[in-house]
Amino acid sequence: MIEMTSAADRRRADEILTSARTLCEPALRAAIGSLPEPLRTMGGYHFGWCDADGASTTADSGKALRPALTLGAAVACGAPARAAIDAAAATELVHNFTLLHDDVMDGDRNRRGRPAVWAVWGVADAILLGDAMHALAVRTLVGGLPAAVAAAAVAHLEQTVIEMCRGQHEDCRLGASGRADVDEYGRMAMAKTGSLMGCACALGALCAGADTATVARMTTFGRELGMAFQFVDDVMGIWGDPNVTGKPAGDLARRTMSLPVVAALSSDGIAASELAAMYDARPGESPMDTERAAALVESAGGRRRTLRAAQDRVEAAIAALADPSSAADLVALAHLVSCRDR
Amino acid sequence: MIEMTSAADRRRADEILTSARTLCEPALRAAIGSLPEPLRTMGGYHFGWCDADGASTTADSGKALRPALTLGAAVACGAPARAAIDAAAATELVHNFTLLHDDVMDGDRNRRGRPAVWAVWGVADAILLGDAMHALAVRTLVGGLPAAVAAAAVAHLEQTVIEMCRGQHEDCRLGASGRADVDEYGRMAMAKTGSLMGCACALGALCAGADTATVARMTTFGRELGMAFQFVDDVMGIWGDPNVTGKPAGDLARRTMSLPVVAALSSDGIAASELAAMYDARPGESPMDTERAAALVESAGGRRRTLRAAQDRVEAAIAALADPSSAADLVALAHLVSCRDR
Repeated sequence: MIEMTSAADRRRADEILTSARTLCEPALRAAIGSLPEPLRTMGGYHFGWCDADGASTTADSGKALRPALTLGAAVACGAPARAAIDAAAATELVHNFTLLHDDVMDGDRNRRGRPAVWAVWGVADAILLGDAMHALAVRTLVGGLPAAVAAAAVAHLEQTVIEMCRGQHEDCRLGASGRADVDEYGRMAMAKTGSLMGCACALGALCAGADTATVARMTTFGRELGMAFQFVDDVMGIWGDPNVTGKPAGDLARRTMSLPVVAALSSDGIAASELAAMYDARPGESPMDTERAAALVESAGGRRRTLRAAQDRVEAAIAALADPSSAADLVALAHLVSCRDR
Repeated sequence: MIEMTSAADRRRADEILTSARTLCEPALRAAIGSLPEPLRTMGGYHFGWCDADGASTTADSGKALRPALTLGAAVACGAPARAAIDAAAATELVHNFTLLHDDVMDGDRNRRGRPAVWAVWGVADAILLGDAMHALAVRTLVGGLPAAVAAAAVAHLEQTVIEMCRGQHEDCRLGASGRADVDEYGRMAMAKTGSLMGCACALGALCAGADTATVARMTTFGRELGMAFQFVDDVMGIWGDPNVTGKPAGDLARRTMSLPVVAALSSDGIAASELAAMYDARPGESPMDTERAAALVESAGGRRRTLRAAQDRVEAAIAALADPSSAADLVALAHLVSCRDR
């Protein structure tokens, strides 16, 4: 990936993520634990706390990047991290509600190295668990904050959910049409991924009692970082090591419209033409030669342009901070996003 | 249906529903109008305001029973109806978000006499529109109320959404298992239908600044009424006139587990045995002889017991009101529910 951080920076960022997971897990477990059965078991399964029969286990719960952003934003705005724990849990619940629904829509059978909830319990229960987790997010936010802060935070969160719905709609449409330009792709990625990271930071700032201008700066930081995150994700979807990422690098086999492909297709030259022909072939007709396709994306500049765009977004994120020196955790997370390999 | 109201009572109840629709429609249109395209057009289509291409039309928007309950509860608690308009719109948005998702889960291709959203735009967009409408409901509630009231109202609404998710899960399970007892069916109906009507009344009371005991009484009124509503719906699902209800009386053809059937199957006697055999046959093997099945449900006492249960629930609802004479609109709605034919 992009190399711009030292091993020490990277350790620091990993510590921040671990700390965010540790701080938020009780709130998340309390929220999921309040669900009626069988939603409670399904929710515990989704978060990696139990298997499908409800027996305790310790599977992957996700990176906790969004909670770390919420806590980091609160600290950068002068509050202790604990002031934003409920808000951090709420953003993680929204993230996971959208994962549950996206997996149904996209037909993705696996999530964090295990069968997705819909693949275990069926589409109806996965939709219902997502709906319930959306409700839990709002309840957690309202339950944990003073009323005036809660109202602003809930309004921000729900506006974000609506933006994410638009983003997922556009993602489905791009996938079906087989064509997108770089700008369209960017708008989709901002709505689908940038918006919730922006909201995660905004909620942290709101919990710290920040003023409107500061909340807006934090939102921009998170949105830009979310774009960088998505672009690095796109690179890993083609060239990532499945043993490290925990998911197959199957974007080309699935003919996914990710930024490296969109950027490559939008270039001139023979590599773009050959790649377009491969993407235009019907999936049933001929399986994608993914090694050849990856080489074409690379030679058409798709990888280079995507990593450049990710780095630009990280720089834009850091530039949005009023005083990066007082936001050390956020800066460390920003650098981690751009050099991560999982 | 049950005859217990005069034509004048019935006209009064129809006026209450029409008035609720008129009062809430601007808030609903503003909420849906704030969605990004294409969710805005899909939402307008779902509410009967436009066709699938966005051209204005005037199709069925639904009865507006839940908004009428919210407004009626506010008035019964001493507030003007306008104090509860946003809360009424929020309950209607939640109701419609669950309809959108239920139609996907149940594979119901029609809604209010037109193709369901998923049948027009596909499953993914119907899930996304439902998610967005859930978000809109919360935003509308928070945007329209003082912060402290909003926090209590949002917590109540989201607890209700979670209960509805459990109810829909149980409904799907009963349908798949082909067996339920009357108590199980009652728990499902309370979670799926009673809970939101209880919440509709609770929100009206909260908007009027009612105390906890009054909010609890209003909740009970709405929950009991919701049960009556569901039971009458079940009778119409077998014996209703499609020209009046706007939907086919196809519960028997679909082998739906509704209260008349559950009650009939739980009775002793030859009619119950024959009905059980008909329900046990695989759908593909032999289409249901619906006239024969309806006669069996009736002779096993299923219709009589269901209408009796509906009437009991209406009486329990009215008994929950501290002073029915100051809640004339709610009482009129209660009587309408028990004698409605659509």
